[in-house]
Amino acid sequence: MSEAVKGATDAGEQVPETAAQEPGAAAREAGPGPGSSGVWSVEEHLDDILRQIRPLEPLEMQLLDAQGCVLVEDVTAAVALPPFDNSSMDGYAVRTVDVERASDEFPAVLRVIGDVPAGGAGELPHVGAGEAARIMTGAPLPPGTQAVVPVEWTDGGTGRGRVDAMRPHSESPAGAGGEVRIYAPAGAGRHVRSRGSDVLAGDLVLRAGTLLGPAQIGLLAAIGRGTVRVRPRPRVVVLSTGSELVPPGEQLAPGRIHDSNSYALTAAARDAGAIAYRVGAVADDAETLRATVEDQLIRADALVTSGGVSVGAYDVVKEALSELDGEAGGGVEFRRLAMQPGKPQGFGRIGADRTPLFALPGNPVSAYISFEMFVRPVIRRLLGVEPVHRPVVRARLAGDGPLTSPAGRRQFLRGWYEHGRADGGAAGPSDGPADDGTGPAAGEVAPVGGAGSHLIAALARANALVVVPEETTEVAPGSLVDVVLLD
Amino acid sequence: MSEAVKGATDAGEQVPETAAQEPGAAAREAGPGPGSSGVWSVEEHLDDILRQIRPLEPLEMQLLDAQGCVLVEDVTAAVALPPFDNSSMDGYAVRTVDVERASDEFPAVLRVIGDVPAGGAGELPHVGAGEAARIMTGAPLPPGTQAVVPVEWTDGGTGRGRVDAMRPHSESPAGAGGEVRIYAPAGAGRHVRSRGSDVLAGDLVLRAGTLLGPAQIGLLAAIGRGTVRVRPRPRVVVLSTGSELVPPGEQLAPGRIHDSNSYALTAAARDAGAIAYRVGAVADDAETLRATVEDQLIRADALVTSGGVSVGAYDVVKEALSELDGEAGGGVEFRRLAMQPGKPQGFGRIGADRTPLFALPGNPVSAYISFEMFVRPVIRRLLGVEPVHRPVVRARLAGDGPLTSPAGRRQFLRGWYEHGRADGGAAGPSDGPADDGTGPAAGEVAPVGGAGSHLIAALARANALVVVPEETTEVAPGSLVDVVLLD
Repeated sequence: MSEAVKGATDAGEQVPETAAQEPGAAAREAGPGPGSSGVWSVEEHLDDILRQIRPLEPLEMQLLDAQGCVLVEDVTAAVALPPFDNSSMDGYAVRTVDVERASDEFPAVLRVIGDVPAGGAGELPHVGAGEAARIMTGAPLPPGTQAVVPVEWTDGGTGRGRVDAMRPHSESPAGAGGEVRIYAPAGAGRHVRSRGSDVLAGDLVLRAGTLLGPAQIGLLAAIGRGTVRVRPRPRVVVLSTGSELVPPGEQLAPGRIHDSNSYALTAAARDAGAIAYRVGAVADDAETLRATVEDQLIRADALVTSGGVSVGAYDVVKEALSELDGEAGGGVEFRRLAMQPGKPQGFGRIGADRTPLFALPGNPVSAYISFEMFVRPVIRRLLGVEPVHRPVVRARLAGDGPLTSPAGRRQFLRGWYEHGRADGGAAGPSDGPADDGTGPAAGEVAPVGGAGSHLIAALARANALVVVPEETTEVAPGSLVDVVLLD
Repeated sequence: MSEAVKGATDAGEQVPETAAQEPGAAAREAGPGPGSSGVWSVEEHLDDILRQIRPLEPLEMQLLDAQGCVLVEDVTAAVALPPFDNSSMDGYAVRTVDVERASDEFPAVLRVIGDVPAGGAGELPHVGAGEAARIMTGAPLPPGTQAVVPVEWTDGGTGRGRVDAMRPHSESPAGAGGEVRIYAPAGAGRHVRSRGSDVLAGDLVLRAGTLLGPAQIGLLAAIGRGTVRVRPRPRVVVLSTGSELVPPGEQLAPGRIHDSNSYALTAAARDAGAIAYRVGAVADDAETLRATVEDQLIRADALVTSGGVSVGAYDVVKEALSELDGEAGGGVEFRRLAMQPGKPQGFGRIGADRTPLFALPGNPVSAYISFEMFVRPVIRRLLGVEPVHRPVVRARLAGDGPLTSPAGRRQFLRGWYEHGRADGGAAGPSDGPADDGTGPAAGEVAPVGGAGSHLIAALARANALVVVPEETTEVAPGSLVDVVLLD
């Protein structure tokens, strides 16, 4: 059946409500569900999935490969930062007593015993009374000195008054000598970065659970960590099912449509932080599907199929996956959810590694919203990232007419959200379970397109999902609604 | 000199203000700058850079390779979506007149002439008076019919009352035959998705300038686009300079430190959407640096160096890059900015392709903030993404004491921002130049660590930059400040 319309029973307005409520049917679908009707709520299904998912085993990774991954160790500094007292300026390392009375009128005149470059090899010169060493930013403070006088406060050894820069080393490879005139005093520690003033050896610099971004990677490099222990990105295999599917770029024969779910869901998996493999479309044949899934298991931390989970004669996904690995106690269970779109859902763990498999409905909109609600949180749980959920905010509903929604189904409508386009309160995006999005309106949301699960063009113009609760059948413009932010 | 402290003259509290104000010095640094002092403001420098940057030339890319890239064509649909009238349910395609009086008591009894699967080959059967075709979701509506009756409203041909699903095709490969009892009427168009109800052939579905995410990629696939014309990701080469730099993972000799900038800036370039190449640290030798930069030009849409831009005798970056390609009218210009950290900045366009090169100061914090302020907007401009700037919000300053800042320098202090932790107003993150962040407080920001440009551990605990304007030398707790949001 059509990827573009598979699982059409989740196009709620077209579903005879009796079907969703029929206990017998539900029982055959899903076994005894939480409700007597056997229909699962969004939370019940999600909780049942998440309780079966543990973060992936950590790996020791090269620093830059760990970007976007979560640290699983408390990192302490083996070295202090800075590792030694060093100059924060280009200038002259001096004994403070020698410059304490220095002024433009009466400069201190010191004998320059040489250069101290950063990263220079060999012994540091000892600076005695009446002496100074020319020092570069980052170079270690030589013994005998307590401060650095910036070159801008000296004559740079020229004997011709204040200078604003040193003479390049390339012009005088021998380094500095002779005398330097110092026009201002510098107290002890001035222009000196003392050892450990940023980090002390043994300090805890990053906690386990930290998401590694550019600044954290910079810090890890600074303390000398070339590799770090993190959870790897999950590998997610995406395939769509349907004999009518044709790859984009190829001509459509009559009755055929282009495969879009395998592209949208592969992109969505990457977007969630996974390494995604797109397998493409598999025909409506149970054996082919079973073989494909078993082949892909070897490179999968999770699998996602779309389509073939409805009540049609050619819905082979259910047929193929219900049996799959059943004897190993695995297998995929198919449920009806009090959700629109996304009513028919399959989930299970298959193969030797009990790899999670999601059998999503085939409508592009149903598949995408099902992915957002159930697969994305699992990818983030595998990554070890918190929160696993998209931010939810309260928003004021814009638009002319009311939104309608079937009773007993939580509806997710496409919308365009604008922050701050509403009455007071700065609730803003919540990204913690702490905020349940019940605060004052953080913005305004306008419906985009209709409720039809085949309206993919509208989905591409949306940046949010408007949530209409199960018990609500109509929402008037101006009402407060929960909004799931998609980007 | 030390990457960890290079460009230390941007550690403002330690800079003799005279230096920053010395007209002669500034002139020698940068030629006549906008101000008589030759000191450039952050905006002057940024505008001067951005006016020289054009988005990269577009490429035709495979759909999934274009994720995160910007479309450069208006995309119109070659086919309608759906491409043909099709069933939104698994059921029976019927003539509405045959079922208009159907009820549980008096079902309509129709002769089933066969199956219409989705993606089936061959001719569609014509459905005559008193006939029906068993049809699958997504299958084309056969000639003669006007509506679909869901299988749940029929006996599924069993003769034993309502069913909730079709008998699997695998159990009766011949397909459906015999009679079906229909227990409810269906008006014309019921459970039918009409051709073009989502998109009409010729419709503009995505505009040039659209950033391609999962939903947009799904839509492009649905209309049959296997490739799409987008701007590619810029290739950014990152190198750090300093004879004292040692790769993380290796032992530190006395006076040496670990290279961290090349790691942090490579990660930051990726984070901004670039393909980043990390070239390790280059020693403080002008020839080596020049040769390395020229070698890297071939794979670079932009280059970023850090360190060696101060006033020391071993600051070879200035020496090497000022001359580089000068005769071709290119070359890198070095400036002093009214900014802390980040006062010394080099920028120019080099080589045959006039490739932009940024010579950033070497302090980890200076380099990172300089990247955020100047390089990130250029990467986004090359990508063609708008806005190029980080969001800026107004926030209330938390903390015990006042923030101090040198006169005449715009200071960027590290902070932790919490949204909604402040008085009314829902200004929220602005991501357009339209919003200048002068709205009411959207949240609260607490300073993290001190002003020192070597405090990399504090940077790794920050999620925002607190902006203290040039003319402001002190900010009291409770004041409203602009905050640059880093994630």
